Amino acid sequence: MKARVTVTLKQGVLDPQGKAIEGALKSLGIDGVASVRQGKVFDVEVPGGDRGRAEAALKEAAERLLANTVIEDYRVEIVG
Amino acid sequence: MKARVTVTLKQGVLDPQGKAIEGALKSLGIDGVASVRQGKVFDVEVPGGDRGRAEAALKEAAERLLANTVIEDYRVEIVG
Repeated sequence: MKARVTVTLKQGVLDPQGKAIEGALKSLGIDGVASVRQGKVFDVEVPGGDRGRAEAALKEAAERLLANTVIEDYRVEIVG
Repeated sequence: MKARVTVTLKQGVLDPQGKAIEGALKSLGIDGVASVRQGKVFDVEVPGGDRGRAEAALKEAAERLLANTVIEDYRVEIVG
């Protein structure tokens, strides 16, 4: 079973990396981008077919390792 | 207009970070995860309503800055 965990900064948390990318895009002359916020995705292979068990394991992985839940949100999706 | 650019390693490209996460999950006692591959997401605000123009700008941004197209794939999605 394939799953994806997407981790993004919470609203209101400053994203210096995103700001740096905005500046770099401008200096490359790529306009039409107002703001950029960077996050992470984890494509995870989960053995077996038990969706509930997979979601629980991924939620625990996100809570304990993949996301800093003080400043980040995460979303678990079973994709196939 | 909101868009998301997702950048992931190409198939076959070794992901040491993903391997490290796999190891860390095991040492945390979180089983049920066979493999992990890490990527990046960029949530981008694009002014105006011209989808075509937005997609072109984001494609250029991905090609020239957000993705290393030798080892990474990218996907542009207009989300709202």
